[in-house]
Amino acid sequence: MIRAHMATSLDGFVAGANQTLEKPFGDHTEHFNDWLWELAAVRKTFGKTGGDTGPSNDVFLDRTANIGAFVMGRNMFGGGPGPWAKEPRWDGWWGENPPYHAPVFVLTHYPRDPQPMEGGTTFHFVTDGIESALAKARAAAKDKDVVVAGGAQAVGQALRAGALDMLELHLIPQIVGAGARLLDGIPPAILQQDRVVPANGVTHLRYRIRRV
Amino acid sequence: MIRAHMATSLDGFVAGANQTLEKPFGDHTEHFNDWLWELAAVRKTFGKTGGDTGPSNDVFLDRTANIGAFVMGRNMFGGGPGPWAKEPRWDGWWGENPPYHAPVFVLTHYPRDPQPMEGGTTFHFVTDGIESALAKARAAAKDKDVVVAGGAQAVGQALRAGALDMLELHLIPQIVGAGARLLDGIPPAILQQDRVVPANGVTHLRYRIRRV
Repeated sequence: MIRAHMATSLDGFVAGANQTLEKPFGDHTEHFNDWLWELAAVRKTFGKTGGDTGPSNDVFLDRTANIGAFVMGRNMFGGGPGPWAKEPRWDGWWGENPPYHAPVFVLTHYPRDPQPMEGGTTFHFVTDGIESALAKARAAAKDKDVVVAGGAQAVGQALRAGALDMLELHLIPQIVGAGARLLDGIPPAILQQDRVVPANGVTHLRYRIRRV
Repeated sequence: MIRAHMATSLDGFVAGANQTLEKPFGDHTEHFNDWLWELAAVRKTFGKTGGDTGPSNDVFLDRTANIGAFVMGRNMFGGGPGPWAKEPRWDGWWGENPPYHAPVFVLTHYPRDPQPMEGGTTFHFVTDGIESALAKARAAAKDKDVVVAGGAQAVGQALRAGALDMLELHLIPQIVGAGARLLDGIPPAILQQDRVVPANGVTHLRYRIRRV
């Protein structure tokens, strides 16, 4: 299964206007992940104990289980536009041991050799588009799932390619007004409401996508 | 309290492209009200017994309780653009006994005398904008609520005027792709998640709007 899970505002934005290196999610998005940080399962990934074990924690555990590979857009991986610099080398936002622990296929226009990291993450750089990246990820994931990690453009490309089987929106009770909309220019589709989890400051809406 | 309740697609459309007299909600919206018609409370308004008494029925009962007046956009009232024709007279889509049973303030650029209908509905025509219509509706509603019945433009105007206290989205698991978006060009705002009701083929999301 190929799936995506995105925090989105009520007006459909997954990032606000004016994205910068210091504020990668743009204006008015500073509370988008408030529901996440104090979850027990998230604290555990940072080596911390305790935390919230409510419904959002179950959603996070489900979302992070059974993943064999990721696909990611260049903007989400970061390092700025254009060819890859040799020095200083950009290996993503997540330090030496990124939280993926699986192959990550990064969409880019610029070739680069695979970059193995600690903890099982290897960044592969794919220059021939979303369908190729998804095929490579599916092959690497074997019988596990592929997650399109973001951003809006990468998930939108997967949706437009008819490749996404499941979409989960973590709906944030906020109007952002401008930025990157997740569902923009997506062809009409009927989805199946799979699971709705109301939680503290967020509603988790999971849909299965019927390929027409 | 001033509130609005709108069926909206996952990508935020309350009406599809190509709205016509025959298809007033436009393309790909034919299932937007599927959750509504078989509810016991809706059947009752048509003089029918039986029907679904599940969670959507409670949502409908809450939504329709304690209303003192409505505000409505010209497109939702119908009758085409431009000055009001004397003959044939257009009194809305709903027949001699419209389902409002209260004063309805219709936003229009063209003056017209109030039109009383059966069952307590009177259509008033307001030519000086949303804030005036809301003030008149509030006065008429006394201690009851004002509902901005639609469409997207009228609710958007109320939101932009900072006048809406509560917004409920009946979220339809569908991607519509084009049409009239409810939350478009609305200034940033933080809302309070008030009630989430997962139901059959729809999720009811109710928010209180904090005026900033």
